[in-house]
Amino acid sequence: MRTVKVGLIGIGNVGLAVLKLCQKNKKIIERKSGCVIEFKLVCDKDKSKKELLSTDVEFVTDYNKIVKDPEIDIVVELIGGLHPAYEIITESIKHGKHVVTANKAVLSEYWDKIFSLANKYNKTVYFEAAVAAGIPVIESLNEGLAGNKILSITGILNGTTNYILSLMTQNKYNFDTAVKKIQNMGIAEADISYDISGYDTACKLSILSSLAFFSWVKLKDIKIEGIENIELQDIYFAENFGYKIKLLGHSSVYKNKYYFEVRKYLVPQDNIFANINYEYNGILVEGDACGKIIFVGKGAGGLAAASAVVSDIIYIAKDITSAVGGREQYVEYTPKKLNIISSDEVEGFFYLRFTTVDRPGVLAKISNVLGQHNVSIASVYQKEPLVKYRKGVPILLLTHKVKEKNLLSALNKIKNLDVVLKPPVYIKILSNAE
Amino acid sequence: MRTVKVGLIGIGNVGLAVLKLCQKNKKIIERKSGCVIEFKLVCDKDKSKKELLSTDVEFVTDYNKIVKDPEIDIVVELIGGLHPAYEIITESIKHGKHVVTANKAVLSEYWDKIFSLANKYNKTVYFEAAVAAGIPVIESLNEGLAGNKILSITGILNGTTNYILSLMTQNKYNFDTAVKKIQNMGIAEADISYDISGYDTACKLSILSSLAFFSWVKLKDIKIEGIENIELQDIYFAENFGYKIKLLGHSSVYKNKYYFEVRKYLVPQDNIFANINYEYNGILVEGDACGKIIFVGKGAGGLAAASAVVSDIIYIAKDITSAVGGREQYVEYTPKKLNIISSDEVEGFFYLRFTTVDRPGVLAKISNVLGQHNVSIASVYQKEPLVKYRKGVPILLLTHKVKEKNLLSALNKIKNLDVVLKPPVYIKILSNAE
Repeated sequence: MRTVKVGLIGIGNVGLAVLKLCQKNKKIIERKSGCVIEFKLVCDKDKSKKELLSTDVEFVTDYNKIVKDPEIDIVVELIGGLHPAYEIITESIKHGKHVVTANKAVLSEYWDKIFSLANKYNKTVYFEAAVAAGIPVIESLNEGLAGNKILSITGILNGTTNYILSLMTQNKYNFDTAVKKIQNMGIAEADISYDISGYDTACKLSILSSLAFFSWVKLKDIKIEGIENIELQDIYFAENFGYKIKLLGHSSVYKNKYYFEVRKYLVPQDNIFANINYEYNGILVEGDACGKIIFVGKGAGGLAAASAVVSDIIYIAKDITSAVGGREQYVEYTPKKLNIISSDEVEGFFYLRFTTVDRPGVLAKISNVLGQHNVSIASVYQKEPLVKYRKGVPILLLTHKVKEKNLLSALNKIKNLDVVLKPPVYIKILSNAE
Repeated sequence: MRTVKVGLIGIGNVGLAVLKLCQKNKKIIERKSGCVIEFKLVCDKDKSKKELLSTDVEFVTDYNKIVKDPEIDIVVELIGGLHPAYEIITESIKHGKHVVTANKAVLSEYWDKIFSLANKYNKTVYFEAAVAAGIPVIESLNEGLAGNKILSITGILNGTTNYILSLMTQNKYNFDTAVKKIQNMGIAEADISYDISGYDTACKLSILSSLAFFSWVKLKDIKIEGIENIELQDIYFAENFGYKIKLLGHSSVYKNKYYFEVRKYLVPQDNIFANINYEYNGILVEGDACGKIIFVGKGAGGLAAASAVVSDIIYIAKDITSAVGGREQYVEYTPKKLNIISSDEVEGFFYLRFTTVDRPGVLAKISNVLGQHNVSIASVYQKEPLVKYRKGVPILLLTHKVKEKNLLSALNKIKNLDVVLKPPVYIKILSNAE
């Protein structure tokens, strides 16, 4: 049985789990790959990481020792971030290695450079772990659904924000308490700004969309909104009306154009996304033949990500064993531009919350402005607040279908009305038809 | 661009959808496969099917014309049933062709013969459409989750029975009315005996399990129960207690042994399976690294199955283009036997319904026998029947965890008690931990 040699860079949770899994399931992996996987060198810039390793793995602190080692067939990049991850990946390709990476940031930022380089050098770059950890959605999009024209992708793609929203919904914690809670539980890092800003979800949406639509979807093509400003009262009101609030990444074809957005959505309680909670991720892929396919699983955790990394290693090792490694590109890259529109141009249903003075005629003033902008109201709720507010009363509206641009113009006027005390809150509603 | 030639046998819904999809998404398929897919010959024993085809496809009625055509690279078998599907597949392999099949019956019945033959001739047999139509669960089990030891598989694998159960639950139709309804809607065939007996689900469970556990799991290794005897009152009572009734296929490792069963389950209403309704299928795969991954999508329909067939064609075509077709077996076949136990030996929670005379002391008699067999009762419900029965009153029990064998012995005695009017009904409960 041939031996395929791997160099692993980055000894964090995932790196350690990859080493452990390859040891534990050695026989299964040999059967699946038809070869022996040997970790020839393992690297971390932090010398102390060496102590976490078993003695029979050689440890280095300089990643160049791996990238330039002529014996190494596959480089596994698990350091995250843009640099030097980008240099590791591209130098590895140039030195004739295949690459496995779990790095969503570097892929969404350098998609064209990485895959055109891989193409040039006949090497492959696999990245199942970059999106939704152990859920095999990259492979499915790329191969299992290969005969389809993909029409849309919708997903809960970030476990940290989903955990925060779940705690707010289930336990009625406010945002800050929920964040502290998951940091204490060790579920989230100290710095969760990439998660709660929507950036992490956007990176993953960029990768899924680039694969699905055969063209690099850049971060700047995606409208990105996070969950930083979410208020507990919106969780309450949404629940009251039969919805849960989720952060979704969403790509879709709309009138022959594409739009991409990461934002909070009101999701109907009987929609599958409403029941994907805590660290779980879920992705709905809609194809013209397969219809709607939904994948659900843990979106975080060392072992779940290791499952994806190891399946990528097996994939490449199989091809190396049959001497065809790199014979076909895993990602077909062509620098064709998609016809993209802003999601402002798309029609949708919306939840609106206004904080107003408590006197007659307020609703008339607001609905008057909405009407002027062709925003038609489906329902109005003037409820007693469920929690105490210092000042103002909430007015809640659900709209009929409206172009978001029109809504934004209306809200822009409404916020300047003298009866309105705070900037209006608006959240898009996911219709069950989507 | 190289041309890969395909012969398609069986012009039903799926066959027609495959031809249509390959035409509609020609460009996508060429990008994905790196070659042109040409349907050189199309076959059906029924001459009249020719009229359904566009004029530029050559039609034959004798499948041997395809199997023996030296130009054909891939044979797509879509006739279903055991014979001559088995002969088509094996003769195609012997004549140097790769095979794509959607045939769950022939695979579960001849797994060893088909894959050892494919191995011998260095050909591959792909079968994504044989289980859950367009859901890429075969590929995921085989590749995306390849680094995992698979611990269990649980699934709603038959759209017809799931549709019947959904109609019974949502519309409160009885079994016969639900069956007539879906036959009138054209959703089910005239003969649904393979569906409602659990046979179809068992074939699919056999395929998934054989892949997951590296060993042919035969139909006779699976305990198979259908939905023929289901009564509307059990749907009502289950709902009342927070459950829905579903037909599940389930494979699991239990104390280092394997068991396989197809049976009705009471599924908690907040479990994902409770919300997979009508023609939708759902499969939960549990791996030691990835945790629980759930796949949901349409389990039936020509286009959904065609999505899977076309992805298999692309897969093989890619390998042929790079001259490595058959270089690696898609299914690794070794005739190792699994250590199998009967599901009677497994512990579970159960729902029991007794139809008894309406007089004091009945519950005491029943619970006495249960106690003698170590069946411990978690809850008792003696409810007014929700629908009218001709005779007898229902007594409902939920058990604590009990070995099914013990329960069966107890029920065997109980059914002979003079106060019990009908054979007891018992249904296993899916715990949310599973």
